[in-house]
This record gives sequence, structure tokens and C-alpha cells, in this order.
Amino acid sequence: MSINQPVVAIIMGSDSDLNIMQAAADILKAFDIAFELTVVSAHRTPLRMVDYASKAKDRGLKVIIAGAGGAAHLPGMVASITPLPVIGVPIKSSNSIDGWDSVLSILQMPNGIPVATVALNAAKNAGILAATIIGAFDDSVSKKVSAYKQQLEQEVMAKVDKLQNDGWNNTYDVH
Amino acid sequence: MSINQPVVAIIMGSDSDLNIMQAAADILKAFDIAFELTVVSAHRTPLRMVDYASKAKDRGLKVIIAGAGGAAHLPGMVASITPLPVIGVPIKSSNSIDGWDSVLSILQMPNGIPVATVALNAAKNAGILAATIIGAFDDSVSKKVSAYKQQLEQEVMAKVDKLQNDGWNNTYDVH
Amino acid sequence: MSINQPVVAIIMGSDSDLNIMQAAADILKAFDIAFELTVVSAHRTPLRMVDYASKAKDRGLKVIIAGAGGAAHLPGMVASITPLPVIGVPIKSSNSIDGWDSVLSILQMPNGIPVATVALNAAKNAGILAATIIGAFDDSVSKKVSAYKQQLEQEVMAKVDKLQNDGWNNTYDVH
Amino acid sequence: MSINQPVVAIIMGSDSDLNIMQAAADILKAFDIAFELTVVSAHRTPLRMVDYASKAKDRGLKVIIAGAGGAAHLPGMVASITPLPVIGVPIKSSNSIDGWDSVLSILQMPNGIPVATVALNAAKNAGILAATIIGAFDDSVSKKVSAYKQQLEQEVMAKVDKLQNDGWNNTYDVH
Amino acid sequence: MSINQPVVAIIMGSDSDLNIMQAAADILKAFDIAFELTVVSAHRTPLRMVDYASKAKDRGLKVIIAGAGGAAHLPGMVASITPLPVIGVPIKSSNSIDGWDSVLSILQMPNGIPVATVALNAAKNAGILAATIIGAFDDSVSKKVSAYKQQLEQEVMAKVDKLQNDGWNNTYDVH
Amino acid sequence: MSINQPVVAIIMGSDSDLNIMQAAADILKAFDIAFELTVVSAHRTPLRMVDYASKAKDRGLKVIIAGAGGAAHLPGMVASITPLPVIGVPIKSSNSIDGWDSVLSILQMPNGIPVATVALNAAKNAGILAATIIGAFDDSVSKKVSAYKQQLEQEVMAKVDKLQNDGWNNTYDVH
Amino acid sequence: MSINQPVVAIIMGSDSDLNIMQAAADILKAFDIAFELTVVSAHRTPLRMVDYASKAKDRGLKVIIAGAGGAAHLPGMVASITPLPVIGVPIKSSNSIDGWDSVLSILQMPNGIPVATVALNAAKNAGILAATIIGAFDDSVSKKVSAYKQQLEQEVMAKVDKLQNDGWNNTYDVH
Amino acid sequence: MSINQPVVAIIMGSDSDLNIMQAAADILKAFDIAFELTVVSAHRTPLRMVDYASKAKDRGLKVIIAGAGGAAHLPGMVASITPLPVIGVPIKSSNSIDGWDSVLSILQMPNGIPVATVALNAAKNAGILAATIIGAFDDSVSKKVSAYKQQLEQEVMAKVDKLQNDGWNNTYDVH
Repeated sequence: MSINQPVVAIIMGSDSDLNIMQAAADILKAFDIAFELTVVSAHRTPLRMVDYASKAKDRGLKVIIAGAGGAAHLPGMVASITPLPVIGVPIKSSNSIDGWDSVLSILQMPNGIPVATVALNAAKNAGILAATIIGAFDDSVSKKVSAYKQQLEQEVMAKVDKLQNDGWNNTYDVH
Repeated sequence: MSINQPVVAIIMGSDSDLNIMQAAADILKAFDIAFELTVVSAHRTPLRMVDYASKAKDRGLKVIIAGAGGAAHLPGMVASITPLPVIGVPIKSSNSIDGWDSVLSILQMPNGIPVATVALNAAKNAGILAATIIGAFDDSVSKKVSAYKQQLEQEVMAKVDKLQNDGWNNTYDVH
Repeated sequence: MSINQPVVAIIMGSDSDLNIMQAAADILKAFDIAFELTVVSAHRTPLRMVDYASKAKDRGLKVIIAGAGGAAHLPGMVASITPLPVIGVPIKSSNSIDGWDSVLSILQMPNGIPVATVALNAAKNAGILAATIIGAFDDSVSKKVSAYKQQLEQEVMAKVDKLQNDGWNNTYDVH
Repeated sequence: MSINQPVVAIIMGSDSDLNIMQAAADILKAFDIAFELTVVSAHRTPLRMVDYASKAKDRGLKVIIAGAGGAAHLPGMVASITPLPVIGVPIKSSNSIDGWDSVLSILQMPNGIPVATVALNAAKNAGILAATIIGAFDDSVSKKVSAYKQQLEQEVMAKVDKLQNDGWNNTYDVH
Repeated sequence: MSINQPVVAIIMGSDSDLNIMQAAADILKAFDIAFELTVVSAHRTPLRMVDYASKAKDRGLKVIIAGAGGAAHLPGMVASITPLPVIGVPIKSSNSIDGWDSVLSILQMPNGIPVATVALNAAKNAGILAATIIGAFDDSVSKKVSAYKQQLEQEVMAKVDKLQNDGWNNTYDVH
Repeated sequence: MSINQPVVAIIMGSDSDLNIMQAAADILKAFDIAFELTVVSAHRTPLRMVDYASKAKDRGLKVIIAGAGGAAHLPGMVASITPLPVIGVPIKSSNSIDGWDSVLSILQMPNGIPVATVALNAAKNAGILAATIIGAFDDSVSKKVSAYKQQLEQEVMAKVDKLQNDGWNNTYDVH
Repeated sequence: MSINQPVVAIIMGSDSDLNIMQAAADILKAFDIAFELTVVSAHRTPLRMVDYASKAKDRGLKVIIAGAGGAAHLPGMVASITPLPVIGVPIKSSNSIDGWDSVLSILQMPNGIPVATVALNAAKNAGILAATIIGAFDDSVSKKVSAYKQQLEQEVMAKVDKLQNDGWNNTYDVH
Repeated sequence: MSINQPVVAIIMGSDSDLNIMQAAADILKAFDIAFELTVVSAHRTPLRMVDYASKAKDRGLKVIIAGAGGAAHLPGMVASITPLPVIGVPIKSSNSIDGWDSVLSILQMPNGIPVATVALNAAKNAGILAATIIGAFDDSVSKKVSAYKQQLEQEVMAKVDKLQNDGWNNTYDVH
């Protein structure tokens, strides 16, 4: 895998989604996974979407992360065209009904065309999920995923210590 | 408008939706509006969908009725391509979460790409809505719409009479 | 079609809805479609509503856009009287339960009386939908709708360029 | 109050709602409260609805019970016209989304036009509520309401006895 | 009916609900209907609630308006004890799940014990509903209700004029 | 603790709830925990409810399990009166809106008056929860709870074996 | 029961939940019930969670209060391991869909593994529920619970007085 | 990759979920992807779950498919332990509230621990998603995924033909 060849694509329906989707980029950078990021709109650039999805695998991509809000068709439409795994990020956009529209229009795909849906606005988790997929076939990435989980654990343990220092009683964490 | 030239298209994601969508065909027949009906799947035939939507206006269609269930992308994707009005019929398919997924993924379209959404499973109303659209520019159709509304009213009045005959008291409908 | 004869009506239950409904007026202006705009309340002026709906077609209107919030009866009641297509805009008013009440009381019309429902607060889309309806029978309007879609596409492509200029990696948009 | 003069009206959008709404009639009969029952459809007979509501008070009615399903506009529209109290019965009709549409389009009326909403399909409770309203100004009816509540209590106590006889342990109901 | 004898009671679970419930008091004042207002908590003063409800009718009350939030038991519990009509106001309290808990725990009463439920936070409508109930048996109040509806209509017509003065086109309101 | 003295009460609003609530009785029998079972209706026997709750602790009860459906007030009202822990079982009764009303009117109690709510229709879990409460202070019961958990585990392991015997591949459970 | 031996544990998935969960600590302090408080994350420290739950009973704990947000697995997973009663506090965390995810993933536990769920964010009620459980077997705690309920009642009565002093009419509270 | 070494695991909380989860096995068989299938319950066998998840990667698995209903903790808990991608299948079990509990407790995972969630009951899509993941790194599998998509398309085209043969008018599919 060359350093510059993106293996993950992060696409979104509008650059107004970038403030959410950037978290996916940040985590992929932290995992040293090469990615590309651009705007592909199912509704405003349908032909670009079809072409982008059609060429994704041949361009060397392994995973596509697609974020969209409201009646969010981008993840499912891309998944209908590419044989690659597509991770969908439901975005609670300004016109969303509390996020339910985004969640359901990404999650509830018909038989044959799955989208790997993550939580509302959870672009960070989309990045981690992409890393676990790549890591399943690349030990160096898998080790980074495991190290990340250990870091999460250590952060919790630091909070445990902090709470004790703040005077909160706890007879379990006695050394 | 020639008799055989369809002016309304009824499309659906699967022929399993025909039992719902046939009601649109039935009402268009009753209004003597020429229509075509076929299967176009956003997820299983994305290129067919793009091509169908691209050519719809040039083929002489005036209105497209699109029915779909679950994460229902067909109406919105067709609307993203054609300049014609698209009527969306949310279908409560077997894998739907009580119809909410179909409703929200058709209704909650982003700014720029509207879909004229009707009630869950309301293919009949989609047909009537198409008739009102055509009728706005064709008096012969508009008169049929008005006649249909009068018929609905007469059916109610027949029920009023029947209830009285069945012995239900009512001092309003006294002649 | 004379220049001053409105072909689209924008009505709403209260002038407090104007901040939402103005987007329909703005887009109709942009499409050079003559419209009228006023307040018609189903609950506070029921007789005005009946009269307004009864005369709408004879006054030369082709499409009625009706916005309302909460238990939103205006679009459906107008649709029950006029043979014209009625576009309903559910408004998330201050007393609404997250918009669900507006959406459902406009969308879920019974058989026989359809309302072309758009997304919550989506008055802009109501205006565009009206334009597609008129455009289906008026090529000059249809061309404006197509041009509008092209403009949406160009705006996305400008964002694609901007993201690249901002340093976001993307090997697809290579020229 | 003459015996034959109806003081309560039971109206519904369709005679298909009669199987639900009959429970209101049954309880009013049990309370010896004169009522009338007929079909008034907001969407299919809007002018009948306006006229019916306009004349309701002058015809001697005191309370109107209106049942409707889906986008249920009948109770609210009648309430917009008559000064009488209107009790709304949300009906879970065949095309309803689990009853939510009926409930919200009856309950969530705007300021100025209340509807006294009862539970989904609760026509019996609508009848009882009408009786409490009449009973507030007619002691003979109020006594029947109180007697009805006592009967409910006695039915529960009979069940308490039955459970004990069926062998269910209970040290509270010891005499 | 003496001037000082309250005929409507406004009760609420906490004085924190007063900012919502005051609208009921304001409208009753506007209708010159004597009322009382106090705090009765189903959960914090259950015996007070039972006693208050038991004596309500004998103290001359005709209607009880009860507001509560969250798992709102006050309206239903009062209705279980008094033969008077009870109007329930669901309040979107700070710990409410978007108001759904308040709405459902007031609306969905079992057979035998109705509560006349109004919209979320709609204390004003509760006051108007109480006025319609009293007005059904007191022409002076009924006339005030009708006058109030006329005032609502006039306010809408003033808005119609204002919109025309603000330059919004409308060929319907031509004199 | 004498054998015959009930320590757990199972109460329900109607004997129609017995088919659900019996599961609580069955599990308490299995744990050899003495209980009583009867009908106490918040809405039909409010005074019985107040008296029952008031005397519950002095009669030797330790835990009250209360099941109710729709606008379910029984668990919360009993909890408002007794100092004992009250376990609420939301029941999906015939008039319930998919169980949401029961769940929310039991769960969403205001500050000061908790109800220990279990899953919809989960009377069995209410019984187990009562056993864990008693077991926290009675080792013989706690051991039965632990044994019950071990039995659940063994049932799963038996299913693991059965699947292997049925030919389902699994390289983890190799001995 | 020694003074320093915690009998209640308050655990949470993250110290960001402390601003909610502190209310449980505050009420336990007010009831003089010894408790411990720490962070245990089901997802970030799964082994810590298993070990913590496994040792909870042997360390002398009687009740575990567990708070978590989003897909909240901590309460249910702890309940799957310990024979102690587990009280679950659904927290409306920043990424929650209006709290529904937290509520449902704590409440809807399968048969065999109950969690005593309290209202959204209701850590105070979790503390009170723990006190009622301990109080069922410890009269000194039970008396504090009863005293607390009396205090709630007195606070309501003080509000009743205040409203009267503020000029709100009420003929019930006459002395 | 040896033929017998499973690369995908299908686990579920109970063998009662097998009727849903078998669809994942069927599709993996169709794709010639070696898998294992067994029961692992988060709530009834928590230690088995921890051990199973801990060893999954070292046993050569690449993807874990986990199905569960109600408060569905299995997918998220497994994902908290293994560095492998975990696909979650929400199951509408008998005690589920219309599937919402399963969906939300699998989808709404906190930052750091993603689960790739598919539609309610969509075990078939979980299998296809696993195939796309493996296919991203194994061309022979990727070709099968592409072939499967082509087969879906052909099935649609066969339905198009059938509708034409059944007499449904369509001027688009003219050859």
C-alpha cells in the first residue's frame, strides 16, 4: 500500500457536513490511513455520484465513508453501485426531524444493498470502523486499533484516579 | 395529447409493491389519463433509474409517481434528475419499521429537490394528485376531478341516509 | 398567461409563519412565476378558507401552497374543496411536538383528498415543486427548473474545488 | 330538556368508523342522554361540515363528539366554527401510522380552538366525558356518572373476590 | 352563580408549572369566569389530591383544569374521583422526553375515566375549553366565546390587510 | 420471615392483566418467596389504592410489584404513598399505543417519587428484581438468584451444543 | 453496618456523566447511606466492568446505581453478572437521540436480567430508590424515606400558601 | 485462507434468533465464505462473550456478525473487546417495542466503539456486508459481490418484462 494512495474515501452531500465529517478524517490521520475527502451529492450531482461510485474500487479504495442528513440517499446509492463496503454516517442536519430521517434512510436499506450504519453524527466511529476493516487484513493497522482501545481504557483509569483524588469514596480501586 | 402517449409514469422498486401501486393505475384509468407502469429500482438498477429519469420529460411524461419502501430512495433520486414533478408513495414494506423509514426517506428531501409525498401506502391519492396536476392545465381532466369530489360527497350523503334508515337519530338532516 | 395574473397562491395560517413561507415566494420570484401571498386560517377564518378554496381555480390559480403548524388542517381542508393541486408545508411552530404533528396532519390525508407534502419547514421546496408542476406544461418554466438544477450541481463542483484548495486529498477530481 | 331533543351529537368522517363510535352511543343510552348520530366528513363534505357546525348550538346541542382517523381534521374544524365544546376521538383507521396521525392532528390544536381529546379509539370515554359535562349542570346526570364510577369500583371488588377464590394469596382483603 | 364562587379550578403539580398554567387563568379572567388556582400534587400530596377531588363538586365547581408534566398522573387521578369534567394540560417539563410522556400519561386513560386532553402546554386552550363547557349552559358565556372567535377572525383579517400593505400580491382580497 | 407472611405484593389494575402478571408470581414461587396478588385499580378504586399503599409496609411487605397499561398511574401513585420500593410493569394493553403510553407513564416519574421500571410486559423480570432486592439482605434468596443466573448460562451452553449437533460450524467450542 | 462500608455503588460510563449522577450521591448523603462512586465503562473498560460486578456483593454492596447514555450497556451488563439489584439511570448524553436510545437500551432487558430503570437523567430518583430498597430492611432508613416524603408534602403546602398570598383565589384551603 | 478456517462468525444471543440469523449463513454459503455460527449471550453468558471476543482475531476471524433483540448489548460489547469489525443485526424480538429498542441499542454506540449496524432483521444484508469487507481485500470474493449485484439487476429486468407481458403499458423499455 503506497503512502499516497487513498484506501478510504470520505464523501458527504455538502461541505456544510464537513464540521461533522472531519472527525472521520482526524481519526484516519491518527491511524496513518491514507484517505481522500470530497463532496459528492446524490441529489445535486447524481451523475458524479454514479461515476464516483463506479470507479471507486478500481481507483484502489477499500472502504467508502458517506455522510448525509435528512432524506439521506448518498450512502445507500453509492452502496448500490460499488462492491466496496460503505459506511453511512447519519447527520442531524438543520432541517432534520431530530435525526430520525437521516438514521432511517441510511439504516433501513433493502435486502441486497447493505450500508454499515453508525450512530447519529458519529463520523469518528465511521473512521474507526474503517480502520477495523482495514486492520482485519493489515496487522499494522489492527495493532493501532488495539492500541487505541487500550488508550481509551487508560483514559478511563485516569478518570477513576481523578475522582478518588477529588474525594469520591471507592473501596474497589484499592492497591 | 395523443390517446396512447403516457403522461403519467408509475414506477416502483419491486413488483412486490404492485399490490399497493395498482391503486394509482386504477384511478388514472378511471380519469382516462394515459399512463405507463414499470419497475425501476434505485438500488438494484441504478443506471436504469438514471436513464429513465433523464429521458422522462423528452418522452412526453408530465408527472412521475414513484413508490418505494424502507430506505426509499427511488422518488428522491428520480426527482434529482428530472425537471418533472415527482410524487412519492411511501410503502409499508415487510421490513419497514411501521412505515416511518419509508415516509421520512421520501418526505425529508433537502432544499432544491422536492418530492410531492402522499400518505403511507396512498397510491390512490398519488393518482388523484397526478390528475389534479394535469387538470390544472387541462379542463377536461379538471372536470373529472371535480366530478370525483362530488361523487365522494354523494357517497357520504348516501351513508347519512343509510344511518337514518338504520334508526340512528339525527335532527339535522330533516327535509 | 398575463404577467400580473398569479398562478401560484402561497397561503398560511398566521403571519407568524411568514418567516418560513417567504422562501416559497423567493424561489417563485427567482423563477419569474407570478404568485399571490396571504393569510388564510382554517381554524380562525373557516369561512374565508372555504370561499378562498372555492374560487381559487376560477381566479386562474394553478397551484396552491399552504403552510401550517401543529394540528395543521389548512392544506388538507383547501384540498378538499379545490380541484387544484395543493402543496402542504408542515411548519415546526413553537407549540409543535418536534414537527411530528404538522407532518402527520398534512401528510396522512384519507383516500380521495391528496396533499403534496414537502419536508418540515421546506417552503423553498414547495416553491420548486410548484415550478416543476407549471414547468410540465410550460417549457420556459421547465428550462428554468433544469437551469436551477444545473446551478445546484455547479455549486457542488465549486465546493469540490474549494475543498481541494483547502488541502483535502482527492484523486478522483484530477484533470 | 325534552326527551327527544338531542343534546349530544356523535359525528364521524365515515360510516366505517361506526364500529368504534358506537361505544359513545351505547354509553349515552345507558346514561339516558338524548343524542343524534350521523356522518359528517371534513374532507368529503366540507360544506355540510361547516353548515352542521354552524347550526349545532341553535339546534339545542350542548356537546359534539367527533371521531376521525389519519389526518383527522373533523374535530378541529367543527371546533373552529361552533361555540360548543367538541370532544375528539382519534381513530386508528386502516391507513393510520399506529394512530399517531389521528392523535396528533386532533390534540395539537392551535391557541384559540381547543378540542377535548380522549384516548385512541376511546369513543366510550368520549360518551362519559359528554355525560360529565352535562352532569356539571344537571344533577340527575351527575348522579348517574357517580353511580357509574361506583359500579366500576364494585366490578373491581368482585374481581378481588374472584382472585381470592381462585387461590391467590392476599392478606389485605381480610374481613 | 355568585360572582365570587369559583366555577373552574386550575390545579397543577408544582408552582413551577404556573408560568404555563397562568394562561388558563388569564383567559378565564377575560371571559369573566370565576376560578380558583392552587397546587395539588398527585405524587407529593396524594391525600390532598383525593380530598380536593372528592369535595370539588360540592364546593360548586363545574370544571377542573389540571396541568402536569412527565409521568403526569394528576388529571387522571382527579378524574377518577370527581364526577366533574376534568381538562388535562400536558406540560413539557424540564425532565420530559419532548413532551411525549406528559401527553400520553394524560391522554391514554382507560375506559371509564376520561380526561379532556388539550395540546402540549396549551393552558390557554384549557381555559377556552372550560368556557365552552360553561357556555353550553350559560348564554352569556357562550356569547363571549363566540365574540372571542370573531376577534380571532378579525385579527387574521388585520394581518391580511397588513400583508397587502407590505406589498404582498393577492387578487382575492379585492374590494 | 415466616413462611406465610407475604413479603412481595403483586398488584394490577385489572384481572385482564393477570395473563401478563402471572409470570411474576411464577418466578417468586420458584424462588420460594412468599407473595400476595390482588387487583388494585388507581382509577376505579382510588381509595382502595391509597389505603392499600398506606398499610403495605406495616403489613410486612418489602417490595410492591405493580402492573398497569395505557396511562398507567398505579405504580407511581402507590410509590407516592408507601416508603417501600415499587417495581412498575408497563403492560401493552389492548388500547395502548404500542406500549409507549404504559412505559412513559410509569418510567418518567418526577423527582422524589421513583418507580423501578422494567421492560414492557416483563412481569417475570419484575419478580426477579424483587428477588434481587430481598436477596441483598437474605443470603438464602441471593443464592437462589445466583443459581438462577447459572441455570440461564447452562441453558445457553446446551443451545451451543445443540447447534453444533445440528451441523453449525464453530471452532471456538472445541474441547 | 459500619459507617464507612459503602452499601450503594454509583458507577457511570464516563466522568462527563458526573454532573447528572452527582444527584444520586447528594441524596444518599442526605439519607446518611454510605456509598462509593467511580467510573466503570462497559465499552472502554469491559474487563474492569466484569470484575467490578463480580466482586460487588462480596465487597458488601447492597445496591448498584449505574448511569449511562446513548447505547447504554453498563446497567444491563452489570446486572448480568451480579446478583444485586441494579438501578439504571438513562442519561441524555450529547450524542443521544433525545434520550430514547439510553432509555430503551437500559429498560428493555431480556427475560432473566432485570434493570430497575428510572426516568431520563433521574439520578436523584435512583438514589431515593436505593434508599427505599435499603429501608425495606432497615427501619432507620425507612423512617428517613418517610420523612423525606413528608418534607415534599410540606414544600407543596408552602407553595399553596404562597400562591394564596400572591392573590390567587382558592376556596378549598380555608382554615 | 484455508477452506475450513472460518473468516466470519455469526453469533446471536439465543437460538430463537436463528430463524432470522440463518439468512446471514445462507448468503455466506452462496459466496463460498467460510463461517462459524454459535450462541453467545451478553446477558446470560457474559464471561463466554468476553472470552469469545478476546480470542476472535487470533482464531483467524476477520468479521463478526452479531444479532440481538430488545436491549441488544451483544454487538456493542463484542466490539468493545475485539479489534475486528463487528456487524450488528437488530432483531425485532417478541418483547421488542416495534424494533426501536434493538435498533437504538446497537446503532447508538459511543465514540470509540463503532458497530456496523444493518436494518432491522436484515441478517442477509449483514452477510453481504461481510462479503464486501472480505472482498475489499480478496478479488475472488469481490467478483462474487459484483456478480450478485448484477443478478439483482437481472431479476429486476425480468420483472420489467413480466409486467409488460402482463399488459402494463411502458414506452421506455422498447427494443
